[in-house]
Amino acid sequence: MTTSTRTAPFFDRLEEARRTKKSVLCVGIDPRPERIPEAFHEAAGGDIERLLTDFGTQVLAQAGPYAACFKPQIAFFEQHGLAGLKAFATLVGEARSRNLLVIGDIKRGDIGSTAEAYAHAFLEPGGDFEVDAVTLNPYLGADSLGPFVERAAANGKGLYVLVRTSNAGAKDLQELTVADSTDRVFERTADMVTALGAPHVSETTGLSAVGAVVGATSPEAGARARERMPHTPLLVPGYGAQGGTAADAAVCFRPDGSGAVVNASRSINHPPAPDGDWHAAVARAAQAAQEELYAACCPD
Amino acid sequence: MTTSTRTAPFFDRLEEARRTKKSVLCVGIDPRPERIPEAFHEAAGGDIERLLTDFGTQVLAQAGPYAACFKPQIAFFEQHGLAGLKAFATLVGEARSRNLLVIGDIKRGDIGSTAEAYAHAFLEPGGDFEVDAVTLNPYLGADSLGPFVERAAANGKGLYVLVRTSNAGAKDLQELTVADSTDRVFERTADMVTALGAPHVSETTGLSAVGAVVGATSPEAGARARERMPHTPLLVPGYGAQGGTAADAAVCFRPDGSGAVVNASRSINHPPAPDGDWHAAVARAAQAAQEELYAACCPD
Repeated sequence: MTTSTRTAPFFDRLEEARRTKKSVLCVGIDPRPERIPEAFHEAAGGDIERLLTDFGTQVLAQAGPYAACFKPQIAFFEQHGLAGLKAFATLVGEARSRNLLVIGDIKRGDIGSTAEAYAHAFLEPGGDFEVDAVTLNPYLGADSLGPFVERAAANGKGLYVLVRTSNAGAKDLQELTVADSTDRVFERTADMVTALGAPHVSETTGLSAVGAVVGATSPEAGARARERMPHTPLLVPGYGAQGGTAADAAVCFRPDGSGAVVNASRSINHPPAPDGDWHAAVARAAQAAQEELYAACCPD
Repeated sequence: MTTSTRTAPFFDRLEEARRTKKSVLCVGIDPRPERIPEAFHEAAGGDIERLLTDFGTQVLAQAGPYAACFKPQIAFFEQHGLAGLKAFATLVGEARSRNLLVIGDIKRGDIGSTAEAYAHAFLEPGGDFEVDAVTLNPYLGADSLGPFVERAAANGKGLYVLVRTSNAGAKDLQELTVADSTDRVFERTADMVTALGAPHVSETTGLSAVGAVVGATSPEAGARARERMPHTPLLVPGYGAQGGTAADAAVCFRPDGSGAVVNASRSINHPPAPDGDWHAAVARAAQAAQEELYAACCPD
């Protein structure tokens, strides 16, 4: 095995991107054909694979200088069947060839050999869908996450386990209080994440290979998650279109400004472009989010 | 819209299959190349798409007479990238063309428009990955399941939400007791499933369009789930290779023998074949499981 940067732990590479670009912005790529500018539709001529690939590639190109990482949402590709997934494969390959870090937002979770198969699909070098990190769902428990942890640790990949999500339904299960304690379910999930990551904490950054998703829409839960998982890198959705502010997201960072990235999707994929120049509008929206988040979350 | 049997509610169609075939057996399709007989490898000549398609099609052919439904596990296809997913698409199309019912074991779960995109991918007529029912993960709460419920109800599809899984890790979150009650988390999930399905109960069978996954490895939890969700169809994994018996699974059925199917994967995909005849061994294993389960779960 070489010692290229590719095999350094994902969260070390992400921290390096933060310092180099002064960015804690994760740009989601959620292509909705009905909101993609007409020029892309004309060029694609009805070819959905080309439409999604061209659009996603331009999001990479315009937002690249301002984004610590990108997070394509696989559902928006899978929705279009095989052609959509071909576009996903092309896009993640394109991002990686540009040395941009890619989190596959896949939210998988299953047991035993099935978890191994998913881990192989997304975290094994050379696969069609290889990404640098993935999101996972913890409902099935620690043994369902284990195969992902092993594969991530072996290949320098990262994981983000759903802990406390940004939607209203987070209250249904995640916010239930556990009997004979003051813990909520998401705090038990946080403990599971901490335990799974403990053997895989980087000496360089003090961050483990097992991160967590913690929404910006509940600063109380965000602060609690940050406190309870001191070595856990966080992925923070809910900023922007979902109502979370940069200040809400800031509670998810460590005091030195490390340990989290904040996702924005719609506001950067589909920004206001009064002059019709979508490309410039994407770059402008990404830069604005990068500056606002870095100022709010990272001390000088 | 026509009134073909395709648009009758999935769980009505599944109940009809139970009566016609005297079967409550769901045959999982989990192709592991290293366990696929050599003759398939020789015929495929290194083409993974063909290997998975040929193997899966023969499972359909051999087990078809004995199976109420089939459940391909998408991870075992996704593991092989685009070629694997082409095989998945071909296989589910093949099953549907044979009038076999197909549950896509996808365990998806996400919010808002992302959930809509997943529902579109798997539950919309004509899509590459169209199946008759899917498995879902409830960690994100009721609002994450809503888009699937709407799509399923509109298209005569079925859902199975993870409630109490068959693995050891089920204890980590699902078995936690909720404060100020005697409920466990999985019972709150069960209540969510019941509420989501309440507007979609079939007059024909009394079964809702929103089912639940309840493992056979904990008969106590299975009986509790059956009691708490009287109108909810159950998908019961854990029989066979995972250690659950037909008697363990029987607690998941309603008194008249309706309301559940029991999955078996490994024991039917990779049965003992002392004479080297894998095809006959699959048919034999499927018939044995069908007979054992029907005798244990369904009264005369």
